[in-house]
Amino acid sequence: MFTPSDDSGLAVLLALFLMMAAAKVLAELFERLRQPPVVGEILAGVIIGPTVLNWVRPSEITHTLAEIGIIFLLFRVGLETKPSSLFKVGARSVVVAVLGVVAPLACGYLLMRLWGANKIESLFIGTAMVATSVGITARVLASMNLLNEVTSRIILGAAVIDDILGLLVLAFVASGATGSVNYAAIAATITLALVFTAFVLLIGARVVTRLAPRIENLRTSESLFVFGIVLCLGLSVAASYVGVAAIVGAFLAGMTMAEASENNQTMHKQIAGVSEFLVPFFLVDIGMQLRLNEFRSSSLILLTVLVTLLAILTKLIACGLAALSLGLREAAQVGMGMVPRGEVGIVVAQIGLSMAVINDALFGVVLFMAIATTLVAPPILKILFAKQVKPESVAA
Amino acid sequence: MFTPSDDSGLAVLLALFLMMAAAKVLAELFERLRQPPVVGEILAGVIIGPTVLNWVRPSEITHTLAEIGIIFLLFRVGLETKPSSLFKVGARSVVVAVLGVVAPLACGYLLMRLWGANKIESLFIGTAMVATSVGITARVLASMNLLNEVTSRIILGAAVIDDILGLLVLAFVASGATGSVNYAAIAATITLALVFTAFVLLIGARVVTRLAPRIENLRTSESLFVFGIVLCLGLSVAASYVGVAAIVGAFLAGMTMAEASENNQTMHKQIAGVSEFLVPFFLVDIGMQLRLNEFRSSSLILLTVLVTLLAILTKLIACGLAALSLGLREAAQVGMGMVPRGEVGIVVAQIGLSMAVINDALFGVVLFMAIATTLVAPPILKILFAKQVKPESVAA
Repeated sequence: MFTPSDDSGLAVLLALFLMMAAAKVLAELFERLRQPPVVGEILAGVIIGPTVLNWVRPSEITHTLAEIGIIFLLFRVGLETKPSSLFKVGARSVVVAVLGVVAPLACGYLLMRLWGANKIESLFIGTAMVATSVGITARVLASMNLLNEVTSRIILGAAVIDDILGLLVLAFVASGATGSVNYAAIAATITLALVFTAFVLLIGARVVTRLAPRIENLRTSESLFVFGIVLCLGLSVAASYVGVAAIVGAFLAGMTMAEASENNQTMHKQIAGVSEFLVPFFLVDIGMQLRLNEFRSSSLILLTVLVTLLAILTKLIACGLAALSLGLREAAQVGMGMVPRGEVGIVVAQIGLSMAVINDALFGVVLFMAIATTLVAPPILKILFAKQVKPESVAA
Repeated sequence: MFTPSDDSGLAVLLALFLMMAAAKVLAELFERLRQPPVVGEILAGVIIGPTVLNWVRPSEITHTLAEIGIIFLLFRVGLETKPSSLFKVGARSVVVAVLGVVAPLACGYLLMRLWGANKIESLFIGTAMVATSVGITARVLASMNLLNEVTSRIILGAAVIDDILGLLVLAFVASGATGSVNYAAIAATITLALVFTAFVLLIGARVVTRLAPRIENLRTSESLFVFGIVLCLGLSVAASYVGVAAIVGAFLAGMTMAEASENNQTMHKQIAGVSEFLVPFFLVDIGMQLRLNEFRSSSLILLTVLVTLLAILTKLIACGLAALSLGLREAAQVGMGMVPRGEVGIVVAQIGLSMAVINDALFGVVLFMAIATTLVAPPILKILFAKQVKPESVAA
């Protein structure tokens, strides 16, 4: 209960109301302008956040809701992705992911070195340019009902592998920044991550499919939905412990239930409800992080533009090349699908800042790159996928 | 993204997983014992909370999720309550609410005075015994598909009025504790609360019903669901500003949309999904507040038992009397439905503690009373309503 004397409760509730209302007003506006609503919701965060109106500031609460939001979004995307469909594109996803990691890391490092930054700074900026924010692309593809296209599956698979690789690069760079690199620990993390993913996909999916009828017979109402929530949270935690991102665990949790929940429309609608409620907080929270007033010198603005362009071009070209044999349009779809850096780039930059490896100015550069790549990709994806759009959209 | 280096994010995610998993395991167990699952979910909080295992502690995050949970539960109950159906039982609800406020306040005050407490302490304990936690009863009635029974409507109406009266009593007692009572301010609050409620129910419901077809034609997908979320959060904030509890605003928001959403099954399932996801956090959070190790002296234990018994008997008898003309069973249903104090009693006690008006020992007494009344009522309600249970439950 929020009593009148409970001011902090009221402040939280007001922040949530402003975030949700602003997100949805701008989403509707962008729909009318035939632009992706996801861009509207991020811009809503820019507008109500510290950069423009300063009505709402990012807080532990908004971050937590954002994080649960992206977890449920990935769980929902996983529910529509059968493991077998991902195995078919597995080899190509690996190539897309690896090229998409190497190119931005190398080019980002070189650019920063040419700019005069030291090795550690340069490595951190390169690392922040590595990992794709699969949530943004998944949201765009889901809202156009395109999750089952071959290129969509390649992007999803590559983004998951890319997330694992990105965390390994970060572990490598971060341990290098604090002292000597612990190769044994990093090898252990790689092994654990691979074993975890293989175990969940190969064994977990079969166990869940076999258990599903029993789960549906439990006394708890909507038991498959409840089981899904518990599995999603549980595998997110497990993934974090193993050294993989929580969202990868949520995506895997969804995939293990893809077959079992195929005919349970009520569960799909309820998960959609949870995800629709939480995802706007994720998108608005990204927008709220922007700090434009950090950019005082023209050389810093030039660097920001260069880093952002490089972040777009490296993913577009490297990931596109890996998918070129599918055709030029398909290559462009895959490349552009890997461009958004979103919350992942922001987290890497925050770690760099907290380790005092990068300064506030470079932090601002990464923030801008992360948000700009996230805003640029959806409209272009919409054009690239326009011919394949299905009439009825499953998720928005 | 929860990276391995993001320990606080991982801790939050782990807490949410433990809360959800424990709630659902105990809910299933209680279903099998033919007991209300809501009791199992609260006990899950007692078990994983500081009193027993100490795996999860209440925090700002768990409180926030609990608060959004109770808000969406009341919104969902409101969606199934047309304003006209509440107007029919309005007069009786007012009598139930007023007697249910006066009796515990007076008896609680007298008991504490006899015990030797000073006037302010006694008034605070009496006030903490006043307000019913409508969420618990609503959850039990909804899970038995009984929201449309006459006694259910009387309980819901009375609980909303009771919440408003409880806040007024609290404002009165709290201002008395800090100095002189500001009668003008309290009169203004009463007027504002009445105008707000009347305006939302009389005008708001008509406007929403008329606007609904236009809202459903917006470009945003699931626009009525999205509008519902924004309205629910908005009226919760507005209610808090006006001096009414946020959950009253959420309940009113649901009622204004009851007619407009009647035939929108998808929206009902999506709201159910959000509420099912969030409500366990509300129930577990209540259980986690219990601190049994405060009870060291036998006289304190005796006082706790007396306060708890009085809290149960005053509501049961006073509210039951107000409904006696409906029949004995119906009177018992109404009386028992008003017994749970839940989070409302806890908030009043917290305010008393923060104002240094009551001490830790009395705080522990109120906590126990709030949780015990919440655990006792559901099983008895289940028995009292057993003959009316509908085969298919809408909400659990």
